[in-house]
Amino acid sequence: MTTAQRAGSLTTPTLTGQMIIAGDHVTGTGTAVHAINPATDERLQPAYAHGTAADVARAAAAAAEAFAIYRNTSSAARATFLDTIADNIDAAVDDLVARATAETGLPVARITGEVGRTSGQLRLFSAVLREGSWNGARIDTALPDRTPLPRPDIRQRKIPLGPVAVFGASNFPLAFSVAGGDTASALAAGCPVVVKAHDAHPGTSELVGRAITAAIASTGMPAGTFSLLYGSGRELGIALVTDPRIKAVGFTGSRSGGTALVQAAASRPEPIPVYAEMSSINPIYPLPGALKARAADLGRAFVGSLTLGSGQFCTNPGLVIAVDGPDLDTFIDAAAEAVSATTPTPMLTPNIAKSFAGGVDEFDGAATVVARAAETSAPNACRAALFTTDADTFLGSETLQQEIFGSSSLVVKCRDAQQVRDVTAKLEGQLTATVHADDTDHDAAADLVGLLELKAGRILFNGWPTGVEVCHAMVHGGPYPSTSDSRTTSVGSLAIERFLRPVAYQNVPADLLPTALADGNPKQIWRRVDGELTRD
Amino acid sequence: MTTAQRAGSLTTPTLTGQMIIAGDHVTGTGTAVHAINPATDERLQPAYAHGTAADVARAAAAAAEAFAIYRNTSSAARATFLDTIADNIDAAVDDLVARATAETGLPVARITGEVGRTSGQLRLFSAVLREGSWNGARIDTALPDRTPLPRPDIRQRKIPLGPVAVFGASNFPLAFSVAGGDTASALAAGCPVVVKAHDAHPGTSELVGRAITAAIASTGMPAGTFSLLYGSGRELGIALVTDPRIKAVGFTGSRSGGTALVQAAASRPEPIPVYAEMSSINPIYPLPGALKARAADLGRAFVGSLTLGSGQFCTNPGLVIAVDGPDLDTFIDAAAEAVSATTPTPMLTPNIAKSFAGGVDEFDGAATVVARAAETSAPNACRAALFTTDADTFLGSETLQQEIFGSSSLVVKCRDAQQVRDVTAKLEGQLTATVHADDTDHDAAADLVGLLELKAGRILFNGWPTGVEVCHAMVHGGPYPSTSDSRTTSVGSLAIERFLRPVAYQNVPADLLPTALADGNPKQIWRRVDGELTRD
Repeated sequence: MTTAQRAGSLTTPTLTGQMIIAGDHVTGTGTAVHAINPATDERLQPAYAHGTAADVARAAAAAAEAFAIYRNTSSAARATFLDTIADNIDAAVDDLVARATAETGLPVARITGEVGRTSGQLRLFSAVLREGSWNGARIDTALPDRTPLPRPDIRQRKIPLGPVAVFGASNFPLAFSVAGGDTASALAAGCPVVVKAHDAHPGTSELVGRAITAAIASTGMPAGTFSLLYGSGRELGIALVTDPRIKAVGFTGSRSGGTALVQAAASRPEPIPVYAEMSSINPIYPLPGALKARAADLGRAFVGSLTLGSGQFCTNPGLVIAVDGPDLDTFIDAAAEAVSATTPTPMLTPNIAKSFAGGVDEFDGAATVVARAAETSAPNACRAALFTTDADTFLGSETLQQEIFGSSSLVVKCRDAQQVRDVTAKLEGQLTATVHADDTDHDAAADLVGLLELKAGRILFNGWPTGVEVCHAMVHGGPYPSTSDSRTTSVGSLAIERFLRPVAYQNVPADLLPTALADGNPKQIWRRVDGELTRD
Repeated sequence: MTTAQRAGSLTTPTLTGQMIIAGDHVTGTGTAVHAINPATDERLQPAYAHGTAADVARAAAAAAEAFAIYRNTSSAARATFLDTIADNIDAAVDDLVARATAETGLPVARITGEVGRTSGQLRLFSAVLREGSWNGARIDTALPDRTPLPRPDIRQRKIPLGPVAVFGASNFPLAFSVAGGDTASALAAGCPVVVKAHDAHPGTSELVGRAITAAIASTGMPAGTFSLLYGSGRELGIALVTDPRIKAVGFTGSRSGGTALVQAAASRPEPIPVYAEMSSINPIYPLPGALKARAADLGRAFVGSLTLGSGQFCTNPGLVIAVDGPDLDTFIDAAAEAVSATTPTPMLTPNIAKSFAGGVDEFDGAATVVARAAETSAPNACRAALFTTDADTFLGSETLQQEIFGSSSLVVKCRDAQQVRDVTAKLEGQLTATVHADDTDHDAAADLVGLLELKAGRILFNGWPTGVEVCHAMVHGGPYPSTSDSRTTSVGSLAIERFLRPVAYQNVPADLLPTALADGNPKQIWRRVDGELTRD
């Protein structure tokens, strides 16, 4: 049986429909929901009954109890734990592909790739743990003879914040869900994790939850290090974020959902950080030289990025900003042709498909439709859409500045380079901004980079934003509202810093110091000693 | 004329009573306030008229304009700028000592030391800039032959957030005020600064504001890089925090003031980070072995820390938690004797003195007074106070868990080590926690360190928390409510990270890359290349 065939097998017999709380399988007592196969509108078994505030309290209490042990595990032990989760996920690839394709309507190749990305993220963080710089070790040696006052011995390291709540995203059933980037970075930091699964892929969530739970058992981590809950965002989600034992939150989803969590977290007696990745329209800037050289190729490639995964990426290119003229017309014509030729693909859920259609309808009145994918009777299909408008209209329209989640994009025609700057200045914060430039575009490109640094977390040249490399230098973040906290990233190794805080140890006796700060550097990690980085 | 004599010279003739907005001297049109010499209740000239929302808008606009240039200045240029501010402040030491002692009632030696600390902080950040790790440079090299997809070239650096609002603190007229740690770290990061001066020391603020303005002129920085405003926290302060051009806030002060700013910043259309350092009672843990060896010495030394600067430190030891018994009685007796022997010293302002007296009165009903400093007819004097209570009473009393700003402390007598833990568990977040331990206390100390890491930003052994070393490893921060953001520090070189955010550059042409990320590492800074730190 090939993987493609397995993807047709819609019920994995082992699924229980239960939550996992500190290793225990727990049947919810709330509303029961089923995943829907958006390609067929078929209801998938089993039912997943939502949990209650009592389940949140039980998971949070277990996480707090586990934290006392888990936070003191060695980097090496946590690295082994993360590697084991990764191994378990890789081993479950067939079941995951079968279930996740059914739950999301995403193709087998995409889900197969996402499984690899998810285990790869976990292994990136195990490498980060073994390398050791995450400790943020700093030592200022004592200066007993300094006048007028001696300097004490002061050492600093970073410690985990505490239990973290993670909200699974609809659009990455693996890489931004139960064992996704937020969970991987929080577990690496030493924080237990309580996940609220997304209702769109509960079965995938259960499978991944079991992979983590099995890794906890086989590596001897405390059971409360991980729990998996099902429930609504407004009830169970808010209960989770406002539980006093939860100390940070990771979220990927809508602006309204993220904003609600940020407000709930800020209203707690003890406010906590929320890392919400929310809304981005990811402008594309084809500059005149690039357009002159290859407008039609760019237009076609743009549509490839636009329609990938039914456009359901945080980094989907929803906006093209360029100086008007014949070359831009060529770009638009090629893009329009490509959009018209695309076959509609299912969106993740009926609600997302409905929102997409509504968003496109709203744009329809405010901008010019230049292409739509063909109509289809397939359920929940994303009919790609391409609009154009002029910069003045764009600048005056709140509607056109909104994100449409899915394969819809708007080309904003500007009079000149100054109007490109004016439109850019009006944009809200973005995850990405992409420039297509040739050598002849150097001055315009240099000017744009300066503007875009203030608007986006990642600036790309001559590529497309929909691929997000998992590596050390990646930033998947950006100014509000692309995220609620621009000081960090949710993809890449820097993400571990979201769940850490520094502690200083002053004149603490050698036998009470954390190993990362011990004399002689027994862990052989990079440390900043009297201001200089060293491994001595 | 000696410095001590100059301190008696209450008006520095050059003071104008004006704000400084982007280099212009501007007379406020609001309420006029005078500094009060708290030691004499004398009103000091000149009057400082408060600014209005229009002044905030003007300063913020100038800061935003300056940001476009200032953020792109080189590390070396900003280092020279900071060094020049430091030189100017050192050169003004006589005027600063004269004015600040008059405005605060703090002694000449303290203010002289604080001038040195303030210029030292600025020089620490110039060293940080020259060293270059602040860039957070990371490079993941392209892997063009990787399958299934090539890896692009991705590089990351940190850039400044934008204009920063800084609120001067009452208790450090120099080190946490106009050119204090918040300003130094924000300017180092590349952020223009708009300071709201504290009304308790407007003249000192003006002198320091001029030192910065002169440095801007002599080093060629844009004028809007710095502005100094006078005004009320509730009006001008909130206007400043809610101005859309302001991108982060630094504050040191009361819990109510900090909370108001945090809420205002969170309610903006674009929320921004607030680094508010607020409330801490800084528990002291004399362990049984240490008490047995030197209870009386510890009691006396404790009072030295408690009464330093009339107890007006964020790190003032407001709580002692210990197992009851004869050795603790010896500690209390020695401390009581020392408290009774102290001479009351003036507090910073009449309001602070009134709040202190009110706080002590409230404790008077809830705990046992064991010592007060003598009564005095001197105005605004801080009569040090020492209270005792038992752990059960403490755990049941909200009053006794509050901070009294000033030289008042409470000894909580515990039945046993378990009750020490119970009391500790009940504490809110703290800037510091101090353990006094002998070798025989090893196990109890180890246990405490584990608890205190979760409660405090700095753990000290066998010392006192009131000294805060300015260095690389210092953490002056901690869990809420000691600060509004435990992930950072307001003292020490790590503080620069508060005002930075990461940006990734993907396949950006070499001639458009920031120098910190250029091939060949022309700045010779530490960078993480493919996961490994290197200066190559």
